[in-house]
Amino acid sequence: MDDNNAMVIFQPSGRRGEVPKGITIIEASRKLGVDIEALCGEKKVCGKCIVRVEEGHFEKYGITSSQSNVSAWQEEEEKFINAERREKGFRLGCVAQVKGDILVFVPEESRAGKQVVSKAARDIYIEHNPAMRIYHIEVDPPTFEEPTGDFERICRGLEREYGIKDLTIDIMTLRTLPTALRDGKWCVTVSVWNEKEIVRIRPGKVEHVYGIAIDVGTTTVAGYFCDLSTMEVIDTVSMMNPQCKYGEDVMARITYHMMNADGLQQMSDDIIEGLNELIDKAIANTYPPKKKKKKKKGEKGPVEYIEAPEEGKTYLRLTREDIEDVTIGFNTAMHHILLNINPEFVGLAPFPPVIHHSMDIKARDLGIKINPSSYIFVLPIEAGFVGADNVGVLLAEEPYKHEGTQLIIDIGTNGELVLGNRHKLISSSCATGPALEGAQLAFGMRAAPGAIERIEIDPETKEVNYKVIGREAWRKYSEPKEMKAKGICGSGILDVLAELYRAGVIMKSGVFNKKVMKDHPRFRKNPDTNQPEFVLAWAEESSIEKDIVITQKDIRQIQLAKGALYAGCKLMLKRMDLDKVDTVKIAGAFGTHVDREKALIMGLFPDCKIEMIQGVGNSAGDGCRAALLNVKKRVEANWCSRNVEYVELTVEPTFQQDFMEAMQIPHMTDKFPHLEGLVPEDILDQ
Amino acid sequence: MDDNNAMVIFQPSGRRGEVPKGITIIEASRKLGVDIEALCGEKKVCGKCIVRVEEGHFEKYGITSSQSNVSAWQEEEEKFINAERREKGFRLGCVAQVKGDILVFVPEESRAGKQVVSKAARDIYIEHNPAMRIYHIEVDPPTFEEPTGDFERICRGLEREYGIKDLTIDIMTLRTLPTALRDGKWCVTVSVWNEKEIVRIRPGKVEHVYGIAIDVGTTTVAGYFCDLSTMEVIDTVSMMNPQCKYGEDVMARITYHMMNADGLQQMSDDIIEGLNELIDKAIANTYPPKKKKKKKKGEKGPVEYIEAPEEGKTYLRLTREDIEDVTIGFNTAMHHILLNINPEFVGLAPFPPVIHHSMDIKARDLGIKINPSSYIFVLPIEAGFVGADNVGVLLAEEPYKHEGTQLIIDIGTNGELVLGNRHKLISSSCATGPALEGAQLAFGMRAAPGAIERIEIDPETKEVNYKVIGREAWRKYSEPKEMKAKGICGSGILDVLAELYRAGVIMKSGVFNKKVMKDHPRFRKNPDTNQPEFVLAWAEESSIEKDIVITQKDIRQIQLAKGALYAGCKLMLKRMDLDKVDTVKIAGAFGTHVDREKALIMGLFPDCKIEMIQGVGNSAGDGCRAALLNVKKRVEANWCSRNVEYVELTVEPTFQQDFMEAMQIPHMTDKFPHLEGLVPEDILDQ
Repeated sequence: MDDNNAMVIFQPSGRRGEVPKGITIIEASRKLGVDIEALCGEKKVCGKCIVRVEEGHFEKYGITSSQSNVSAWQEEEEKFINAERREKGFRLGCVAQVKGDILVFVPEESRAGKQVVSKAARDIYIEHNPAMRIYHIEVDPPTFEEPTGDFERICRGLEREYGIKDLTIDIMTLRTLPTALRDGKWCVTVSVWNEKEIVRIRPGKVEHVYGIAIDVGTTTVAGYFCDLSTMEVIDTVSMMNPQCKYGEDVMARITYHMMNADGLQQMSDDIIEGLNELIDKAIANTYPPKKKKKKKKGEKGPVEYIEAPEEGKTYLRLTREDIEDVTIGFNTAMHHILLNINPEFVGLAPFPPVIHHSMDIKARDLGIKINPSSYIFVLPIEAGFVGADNVGVLLAEEPYKHEGTQLIIDIGTNGELVLGNRHKLISSSCATGPALEGAQLAFGMRAAPGAIERIEIDPETKEVNYKVIGREAWRKYSEPKEMKAKGICGSGILDVLAELYRAGVIMKSGVFNKKVMKDHPRFRKNPDTNQPEFVLAWAEESSIEKDIVITQKDIRQIQLAKGALYAGCKLMLKRMDLDKVDTVKIAGAFGTHVDREKALIMGLFPDCKIEMIQGVGNSAGDGCRAALLNVKKRVEANWCSRNVEYVELTVEPTFQQDFMEAMQIPHMTDKFPHLEGLVPEDILDQ
Repeated sequence: MDDNNAMVIFQPSGRRGEVPKGITIIEASRKLGVDIEALCGEKKVCGKCIVRVEEGHFEKYGITSSQSNVSAWQEEEEKFINAERREKGFRLGCVAQVKGDILVFVPEESRAGKQVVSKAARDIYIEHNPAMRIYHIEVDPPTFEEPTGDFERICRGLEREYGIKDLTIDIMTLRTLPTALRDGKWCVTVSVWNEKEIVRIRPGKVEHVYGIAIDVGTTTVAGYFCDLSTMEVIDTVSMMNPQCKYGEDVMARITYHMMNADGLQQMSDDIIEGLNELIDKAIANTYPPKKKKKKKKGEKGPVEYIEAPEEGKTYLRLTREDIEDVTIGFNTAMHHILLNINPEFVGLAPFPPVIHHSMDIKARDLGIKINPSSYIFVLPIEAGFVGADNVGVLLAEEPYKHEGTQLIIDIGTNGELVLGNRHKLISSSCATGPALEGAQLAFGMRAAPGAIERIEIDPETKEVNYKVIGREAWRKYSEPKEMKAKGICGSGILDVLAELYRAGVIMKSGVFNKKVMKDHPRFRKNPDTNQPEFVLAWAEESSIEKDIVITQKDIRQIQLAKGALYAGCKLMLKRMDLDKVDTVKIAGAFGTHVDREKALIMGLFPDCKIEMIQGVGNSAGDGCRAALLNVKKRVEANWCSRNVEYVELTVEPTFQQDFMEAMQIPHMTDKFPHLEGLVPEDILDQ
C-alpha cells in the first residue's frame, strides 16, 4: 500500500478501502459509499455524524485500528460527545481525520436512512398541448427528376400533411435520417419540438411519445413519467437527492461549493447522475420483472434470469431514448447547482439569481441521458429564495386565476410563501431552517423507517402514544420492542409541539410546565446538559438502545422555525393590506402529512377555517407536469416569474418584533377565532 | 510482443511500432503516422503506393525483415511493378499485408509530399453585417429593492442601449456570467449571435471579435481568419485535408466509409482535428515568434524560449475562445463526412444529399475548439455533386446579379459548373476525375515541391523547358541537377497537352505524331509496357533518378477529363439555349495557375475571348468569407441552393456523343474563332 494511504473499514456495512491520509472520516465514507448523516454539510455544528473509532487488531482485515490513527480531539466535538463517550472512542466524523488504518463503527442513529419519499401525482386539470409531438409521414423516394435531399423531402411532407413550416433539425437527428427513411421505406415518424426543430426520426409509424417532469427538492427528487400522447402518468418515481451528503440545506451546499474548488462540479455531477438513475428507474418499470431461471438437476454455470411478466399485463419496453421531453423545477440554489452555475451570490444579500428566465437546454449538454437531441425545459425562477419550484406551485394552484385570496406555504427545507389573488401576487421566503424536517433536534431525523411521524399525548396521564414509519400499529397496540423507534421526523415534530401544549406539558411560551410535570417519570433533567427533556419513547421501544426525548432546546428550535413562517405570513398580509386569507394551501411532502388541526394549534400560519386548510401535496411537481403536458404553461411560467413580486421580509422594520411574538404558541383570541374548541380552556388560561 | 502483432519499421522516416498482423502496409503506415500516397483510396488501381520490403537482419531494431513476412504477390501488382522491381522487393502497399516483422522503404515518389496550397483571399466587396457582434454595457448592481438576476439585468441593458430584445443565453456562457459581471464591476462586453443568443460575456470593454471562414476541399483546406469588427483578413492559413490518406477523391472516401465500420467516424474525426489545427495555426500567428534563450556560460537546465517580437509590430495574442464565429463550405461528400452523416446515398444514383439547407451547429457539438457556445454556420448544398462550395462560388461571383451570361468552372478534384445570368442559373457537375490534378498519370503528383507546373516545348527542336514548384529558375537557366523534378502537377498537365499539340508532338486526336517524332531522343517506346512516351525531364534533372515522361495513356486520361468538362459546358449551353458565353470564370487553385491561352488551346471549355476568361482563385472560400462577414449572405446562400437548377448531364441523350467529340483537341473553325493565331497553321491542318 502507498505510504500516503490508509485502510479504512466501516462497520456494520463492512465497506472498506484505501483512502489518502489526511481526509476526514466523512470524506472517507463518501469515497467508500457509506452513508453517514451530515446534515450541516460538515460545518461541525449538527453533531449528526458521530462515529466510533475501534481499538484493536482485526485479524480478518489484517489491520490494527487505534484512536492514535486519527487526528487529535477538537474543541468542537465537546458539544456533542461527553467525556464518557469520548473515552469509548466516539468522534465527530467531519472533524476526525484518517492518519492510519482504522475500523470505524457507524452507530444506527448516524446512519443516513433511506427516506420514505411520498410524492404521488395529484389529479389536476391540464390542457393537452405538449411541446413534443410526433407526426407520421410518407414521402416519395428521390429520382433523377426530383433528387431533393432527405431533410427537405420530409419537411415538404410535414408542411403538406400538417401545415408545419420552417423546421430545423438537430445534427444528431440528422445523422439518423438517411437510414431511418430507407429502413422505413420512405415512411417515418418525426418528433417535432415546439413546432421548431426535428429531434427524432424513426422508421415506420409510432403512436406514442414520452416525457418526464422532475421536481428536484433539496432532499428528495420526484419524477412523473408521462405518456405525452395520452397525458397518462405511467409511473411516479423518486429518490433522495444524492447531494444530501454535502449538506442538508441549500446554504450548506452553497458553503460546500465555496470551500471546495471542485465542489460545484461534484454536486452537479451527482444530481445529474441521480436524474439518470431516476430515468432508468422509470424505464425499468416498463419491462416485465425478472426471476432466476431454475437450473435442471446437475446443471452448472452462472445464474440466468428470465422475464416473469404478470398475466394479462402488457409492457411498454421503453429505452432512455424514448424519453423525448423533460421539465425540471427546483429552488434557486438547486437550479444553479444542477446547471453548474455559481450559486455563491444566491447566498449573499441581496440574493440575486444568475437567471430568472426559463431555459431550453439540450439534454446532452447537461449529460442527461434521454433522446440526445431533445431539450430539457428548466422552469423559470422568481427570486434568490423563491425558485422554479414555487413557479411550479403557482402553475398548479393558479392563485392568479381566482378572486379569493390564497396563502400557499411550501415547506421544504426552506419555506416559500405566496399570497394573493387574480389582482396581485407576492412571494417571499422564510428561514424556517431544517428544524421542521428534523435537523438540529436531539433526535430529529428524515422521514425514514423508525421515524416517529404521529404523536398523541394524554392530557391526564401525559402518557405518549405514537406511530413510526414502517409500522402500521400505534405504540398502544404494540409490544415495546416492536416499535424500533429511531427518532422523530417532520410531521412528528409538528405533532409534538401541538400535543405537548394541548396536554399542558409546555406553556404557550414553549417552556416546560415544571409545576405540572414535576415528578412525572417522562420529565427529567439531562445529566450531561442539565437541560429539561421529555421522553417520547423509552429505550426498550427504540432500535438505538436510548430513550428518545424532546429537549427544551428542541422546542425552542421548532418555535424559531414556526415563528419565522408565521411572521412571514403576517408581514405578507400587511403588505397586501389584508387581515385574513380565504384559503391556506400547504404544499410539499410536509403538506401531505401535516395534521391541519395541529398546525393551527401550534400557530404555523394565520388563523383560517380548518376546512379551508388544504394539503396540496407536491404541488411544485404538479406544476412541472403541467409544463410537460401543456406548452402554454411554459409561457405562463415566465409570466409568473416576472409578475409575482418578491418581498424580502427580513428588511421589513417590524420583522424582529413580529418574529419574536410569533414564537409563542397562540391561544384563542379575536385574532384566532378558529382555535375555539381545539385546546382545553384551562391551558388557554395560562 | 503479442503473437498477433508484428514490428513494422518505415524508412527513411524511421517511424516504427507494433501493428496487428494481417493489415496492409498502407494501413500500418497510417497507424504509425507515415504518409504514403494513396490516390485511389486503396482500390489497387493507381499504383502510387509502391514500397520496398527489405531483406535482412537489422541489428539496430532487433528484427529480421524478409519478403516472406508479407502476404503473397497478387496479380494486381503486375500492372505497376515489373519483374525486375518485383525481384528487388517492391510491392503495392495497399495489397501486401504484414505477416511478420518487416522493414519497409518508401521511395521518394511514393511519399505524400506537403502540397503547396495557394488560396489567398481576394479583394471582393462584402457589406459589413456580421452574425456575431459585440456590445458593451454597464448595469447597476443588484439591491434589495431591485434584486433582479444577472441575465435579466444585462438583457435590460442591451435593450435600453441597443434596442436588442428577446435574447436567450447559452448554458456555457451563463456559467461565466456571474463572475464576468463582478470582475468587470458591472461593465461587460456581450457577444450576441444573430441578435438572438448571447454566446460570450467578458468583463470590461472589448473592441474586437474574430471569426474564420473555412473552405474544406477534397484535397486542401483553407481558412480566412478575419476581424469581424473591421472586416480585415488577419491571416490566411491552409493545410492538406487529413482525409487524403483515405483516398484522393470523394468516391474513394465514400467507398472507404462503406468498407470500414468506423470509417466515417475516422474520417470525420480527422478533419475535425485538422480544423482545430488550422485554428491553432491562425492563432499562433497572433503571438510573437519565440527563440531559444541563450544560456550564460556554465548555466545548465532545459532549453528555454523567449518571445522575439518584431520591432514596431503589435500582436493580438488571441486564444481559441477568441474565435467566435465560423463558416464552412465544402462539396456534398466532404459536408456529410465532416458532419458524420452517412455519405453513401450521395454516391448512389440519383445522388440525393441528406440535407440541402444551411445549418447552425454548436461548435462543441462538432468538437471544434473555439468559443464553446458559438455556432458553426454550414453553408447549404445545391445537389449531391454540387455542394456548399459551389454556393460559396455563387455568393462570391453573384452571376444572378448580372445581365451577361457567366460560365463558372470550379475544378477541384471534381468539376462543378454553373451557367447563367440574372434570369436563370443552372448548375452541373462533371466527372473530370483526378487526372487534371495528377492522379492516374505515370508521373502525376500533387502541387508539391518538385512538381512541374509550367512547360514550354520548342516547335522546332521539340526540346522541353519547364519550371518546378520550389525553384524560381526555369530549366533552361539551371544546371540539370538543380531541378530536382519529381512529377507533374495540375497546371503542368494543362500546359503539357497544349504544348505537345502546339509543337506538333501530338495530333488533334491526342495520338503521338510518329512521323514527326521518329528518331527524336525524347520520343520512345517504354520497354515494359510497349507504350509510346515522351520525356519531359531526364533522370539527371530529377530527384527520383528516373526519366519523367508523359505516356500515350496519360494523354488519353487528360483528354477524358477535359472532354468531360467541355461536354458538360456544351450541354449546359444547349439547356439554356445559348451558343456562347460572355465570361468564363475558372475557380479553384487550378484557376489561379492555369494559363488561359493554353486552356483555350486544349479545349477545356467553349470558345471565349481570351480577355473574358478570368481566374477567380478560391472563389468558394471567398463566398464563405462573405457569409462570415455579412449575415444576409447566409440568407442569399439558401436562396441559391433552392433556386439554382441542378442538371444531371449523364442522363442527357447526346451526352456520349458530345463527350466523344470533346476529347479531340479543337482547331480553329467557326466554332472556335478565338483560337486564331494561337496554334501554327500547319498543325491545324492535320
